[in-house]
Amino acid sequence: MNILDGKATSKAIQQEIAAEVAERTSKGLKTPHLAAVLIGADGASQTYVNSKVKACERCGFKSTLVQRPADISEEELLQIVDDLNNNDDIDGFIVQLPLPKHINEQSVVNAIRQSKDVDGFHPASVGKMVLNLPTFLPATPYGIMQLLERYDVPTQGKHAVVIGRSHIVGSPMSILLSKNGAPGNCTVTLTHSRTKNLEEITKTADIIVVALGVPEFLKADMVKDGAVVIDVGITRVEDASTPKGYAIKGDVAYDEVAPKCSFITPVPGGVGPMTIASLLKNTLLAAADKPA
Amino acid sequence: MNILDGKATSKAIQQEIAAEVAERTSKGLKTPHLAAVLIGADGASQTYVNSKVKACERCGFKSTLVQRPADISEEELLQIVDDLNNNDDIDGFIVQLPLPKHINEQSVVNAIRQSKDVDGFHPASVGKMVLNLPTFLPATPYGIMQLLERYDVPTQGKHAVVIGRSHIVGSPMSILLSKNGAPGNCTVTLTHSRTKNLEEITKTADIIVVALGVPEFLKADMVKDGAVVIDVGITRVEDASTPKGYAIKGDVAYDEVAPKCSFITPVPGGVGPMTIASLLKNTLLAAADKPA
Repeated sequence: MNILDGKATSKAIQQEIAAEVAERTSKGLKTPHLAAVLIGADGASQTYVNSKVKACERCGFKSTLVQRPADISEEELLQIVDDLNNNDDIDGFIVQLPLPKHINEQSVVNAIRQSKDVDGFHPASVGKMVLNLPTFLPATPYGIMQLLERYDVPTQGKHAVVIGRSHIVGSPMSILLSKNGAPGNCTVTLTHSRTKNLEEITKTADIIVVALGVPEFLKADMVKDGAVVIDVGITRVEDASTPKGYAIKGDVAYDEVAPKCSFITPVPGGVGPMTIASLLKNTLLAAADKPA
Repeated sequence: MNILDGKATSKAIQQEIAAEVAERTSKGLKTPHLAAVLIGADGASQTYVNSKVKACERCGFKSTLVQRPADISEEELLQIVDDLNNNDDIDGFIVQLPLPKHINEQSVVNAIRQSKDVDGFHPASVGKMVLNLPTFLPATPYGIMQLLERYDVPTQGKHAVVIGRSHIVGSPMSILLSKNGAPGNCTVTLTHSRTKNLEEITKTADIIVVALGVPEFLKADMVKDGAVVIDVGITRVEDASTPKGYAIKGDVAYDEVAPKCSFITPVPGGVGPMTIASLLKNTLLAAADKPA
């Protein structure tokens, strides 16, 4: 059993990116510049955005944080997006989701210029992914693809079962695994809440990606020997025995599933840390070969 | 065994559209107007475009055919696309593919304004489909969804196996069948040239969509009793016994497969005629409630 160590892999990728930024600078190319828009004071969102900004600094990127109160109007937010679209120094930017309920998230995402859409959530980015055109891939599925690549996990001709069809993980994951590429070329089954006999399907899988948000959903008897298991779940579960009063649980019953696996991601330290590496790679791509 | 009669269904849809056009006119709304761009003199392309133009006329649409020789430059073609984008009377338009080799097809498709992309091939259209946002669906998969809907073929929770991952059929078909909707909510397995043990997979399928272009590929022993079989193949096979010297063959060995099926599409007369109905529905959607 091999652990797909997302923490170490993400760190390695960030070091490579830092080296690339240094090389860019020496060649007279532009320092990549990521902007993040944070609306309101949600604790989790603030934590995510802060860690993105810190990662930018570690890699030698410029970063800009645009923070506004939760009562901002949709029009004002769209104006911020427009300004970032037209600011030539900003290579890519993200609008941290979720947004306050009075704002239409899709309208905001659609307003982001596709060439700066480093979250990969814009319809044109999603479409390019499906059509196998160069684009920004959404962070979590892209992070998983990088893990599979760096650990040389065999994918061609393998049966991959994706559990969950969300727009940000399950659905793009199924698309990326089935595309003609390496990693890729899997036979992919996309399963979801309406799927019958899920256990029968997962038992035939060479690769299982679970993205449900249901702690310890995937049990040992749903997994065949030698399977690759990718756990996207991150749920806080009350646990009085820990200093914080909660533990982070994945969608996989790790202790019983791991011994059967050829490869498995732990939680925490598996898929989670890879998302930041993806965002940084997308921002580097957005900066392309622009001069300083 | 029930035949999914695409010819009759397409005709019925076209009659409904004609009635809707008449109603639009009586309400002072605009007559839908489809333009088709045909480059070169390829026989098959000419036939397709002509049948699209004729269908427009049958439904009371306006149609415009823009025809240019095969030696047109990419720049000139992009200018035509730009003119159509900016022509307010044209609600939607298509550029018939394939294009001559010196022209980058993707550049031309990308230049079409998404709000007029009635073929549904633009990356933003594809992305909206994945994100389940209102958009123009690609003709063949949309036609199949309409057939399933009109014949009340049960799809929810069914296992659908799609054979072939092309951008215009297999890949969007897998996306539409798995989305949360009716028809939809299938557990979908997307298979392709790298898939191992295809036969084992198809034997578990409640619904099979074959889009390979290999005549009579799907045999009876690959299909379970009661399956729904959708045949997207249209291949000309030499046949001296026919007046034209060829026969049209689907991807399904129809004579042996049909008796096992709950529903099956014939070839010809199944999926093929539905594509035009899809194009007309998209054009009607593009015209929306624009005044005359």
